[in-house]
Amino acid sequence: METKFSNRIQQVPRSFIRDILKVAGSPDVISFAGGLPNKKYFPVKELAKSTQRVLKNNSSAALQYSFTNGLPELRELIASFYCTQGLTIPIENILITTGSQQALDLIGKTFINENETVILEKPSYLGAIQAFSMYNPKFETIDLEKDGINIHKWKESMVKLNPKLTYLISNFQNPSGTSYSLNKRKDIAEYARKYDSLIVEDDPYGRIRFSGEPLPNIYKFAPNNTLLLGSFSKSIVPGFRLGWIIGNEMYIKKIEVAKQAADLHTDVFAQYIVIDYLKNNDIQLHLNKTIAAYKNQATEMCEAMQTYFPNDFTFTIPQGGMFTWVTMPKHNSSLKLFEIARKNKVAFVPGVPFYIGKLDCSNMRLNFSCSDPEIIIEGIKRLATSVKQI
Amino acid sequence: METKFSNRIQQVPRSFIRDILKVAGSPDVISFAGGLPNKKYFPVKELAKSTQRVLKNNSSAALQYSFTNGLPELRELIASFYCTQGLTIPIENILITTGSQQALDLIGKTFINENETVILEKPSYLGAIQAFSMYNPKFETIDLEKDGINIHKWKESMVKLNPKLTYLISNFQNPSGTSYSLNKRKDIAEYARKYDSLIVEDDPYGRIRFSGEPLPNIYKFAPNNTLLLGSFSKSIVPGFRLGWIIGNEMYIKKIEVAKQAADLHTDVFAQYIVIDYLKNNDIQLHLNKTIAAYKNQATEMCEAMQTYFPNDFTFTIPQGGMFTWVTMPKHNSSLKLFEIARKNKVAFVPGVPFYIGKLDCSNMRLNFSCSDPEIIIEGIKRLATSVKQI
Repeated sequence: METKFSNRIQQVPRSFIRDILKVAGSPDVISFAGGLPNKKYFPVKELAKSTQRVLKNNSSAALQYSFTNGLPELRELIASFYCTQGLTIPIENILITTGSQQALDLIGKTFINENETVILEKPSYLGAIQAFSMYNPKFETIDLEKDGINIHKWKESMVKLNPKLTYLISNFQNPSGTSYSLNKRKDIAEYARKYDSLIVEDDPYGRIRFSGEPLPNIYKFAPNNTLLLGSFSKSIVPGFRLGWIIGNEMYIKKIEVAKQAADLHTDVFAQYIVIDYLKNNDIQLHLNKTIAAYKNQATEMCEAMQTYFPNDFTFTIPQGGMFTWVTMPKHNSSLKLFEIARKNKVAFVPGVPFYIGKLDCSNMRLNFSCSDPEIIIEGIKRLATSVKQI
Repeated sequence: METKFSNRIQQVPRSFIRDILKVAGSPDVISFAGGLPNKKYFPVKELAKSTQRVLKNNSSAALQYSFTNGLPELRELIASFYCTQGLTIPIENILITTGSQQALDLIGKTFINENETVILEKPSYLGAIQAFSMYNPKFETIDLEKDGINIHKWKESMVKLNPKLTYLISNFQNPSGTSYSLNKRKDIAEYARKYDSLIVEDDPYGRIRFSGEPLPNIYKFAPNNTLLLGSFSKSIVPGFRLGWIIGNEMYIKKIEVAKQAADLHTDVFAQYIVIDYLKNNDIQLHLNKTIAAYKNQATEMCEAMQTYFPNDFTFTIPQGGMFTWVTMPKHNSSLKLFEIARKNKVAFVPGVPFYIGKLDCSNMRLNFSCSDPEIIIEGIKRLATSVKQI
């Protein structure tokens, strides 16, 4: 029966994280493993009001089949998010997706031929590795530094490898928590234009910034060579599965063909609810609450790590997003640490699945968005104890 | 720039139907072109109540990230639909999809290697042709008769071509409106088992039966060789994009890997709403209203065609579903008729996109679910006038 499956599905890495989350799901375990936004800050009351209004005023359209590219009004509202960057984006350049994950799949489907080169950050987002793997590219990974990808190595690869696309997360990367400097953003845009190569700029966390100045998206500097991904999963709720792709109209039209074959369109009821929510609420006020909480939690986590972890451990000091990335001295095994930590009732994601082909590594991803400060401190203490026991 | 696209996306047939729907969308046009369930029968009040209960009792879980394979309780409720056939389906054998369209895409992704043979009915559902096209199979099409696929030719192809899968719609096929006889269902199941080949049995309309006896799904006779697809789009509402795949656990697990890479999971808010709706309402009572209306509309359409169409036109007398299929004498062009009908303010879907590689044909698909009886009669009169003008 195994022979029935396609080659592509047999090559996809299994979801390490899902297995870990099963361990982390036990109620007495403190989990830094998840990648969930904090449900405390879901705007439940506001969404309930919006839902009632949608069912009162727009029930037929909100429950019927709808447009593949998404509701025009939602795309207008999304375009308006980018005004602060001085960008005017026509709605023809925006496609609604079933979460950002679908954007990755549709881009893979629309652009990647077998054996074409896809450049990834090292480490990279597991969901992107999985989505692109389905289309059998050659992955080339390039070290991620504190201010973005190693630009010299990336430029070299652009010249040598003629890559189909480069996938990167410009703000508060998952898993590393790092962001691109303005210089690297401009450099990347310039080279993408020069070599007419495609940048897939994933930006799910950009609005969850708690320190530092917001920087323009790479898209701004190379709009015809960049596909910019966004999502309501971190800014409103993930359950609706609402994301988007912004890009030049010719690309968006072709991706729309893939979208139609993939699911006809994204849940239109959820689209109507989010339109109503955005029109009747100030999303920035809502975000400010989330941002304040995450900032506090990130600070507590960093301070606890500073206090309890060995001096030769380093970690990202996040300016936003949901993760920090801990780097242990090279001889440490994140997988062994995971096993010990598990016994001490604390969980994290070992760095392994964020690399291609690595069997172990000395990094771990810690999530701070989902735990209260006192829990965070206790969890870091347990983790420090586990480190001593290794 | 065109060279940037993958080969697969350049091979997908463009959606003829979407273009036609634009013509048909004009308010003075009577449209038999769409494939929409009738919004009059959406259970709006009941869904509003369910929505309120979900946001009151389950808001955190209903708005957070969730399981890739779908909520267990929803899968249990879906399993219960099949009890009347004497089937006991464990929830491990069920995967929730973002509409049935996603099921087609995921099956293509999980099973089809380039150049493997996929058998389709002739004519076949356009959405399936599009979804499978992405994976570059060789399509083999076999004539559809009044009681299902030409079984002798199909058996021949099974022996000669060793197909990866056969895609069929067992009840009230789109576009033809025909259903499989019990004998053909059993025959297909037997051969699928004998040659260990896969049957993809799409069944979105099975519960919209208004005459004749319900027949068991092919899945019943070959559960390990059949992937059975279902959907809430025609029985509750399409806007939620909720469908499912039933199959043996090993297949479902592998499809789940593809699902995770495709969109992580399906909108979980919609899943909670449908669970609540199914627990607090008798879906059969709801369906009975839809069925009575569709039956009446189908009858009016058939009677009007009998009265106004030339005697050498034939058509399916539907026992359920949403479509009838008109066959004109061979020299007639459905595309020419479409152009004339358009001027007479009536629209339908010419048969062309339901075939592979045909440039014209003498068939048309008429939808009866969306128009009131008096509109149907007027529309058929306009169509008959157009036929005379051809």
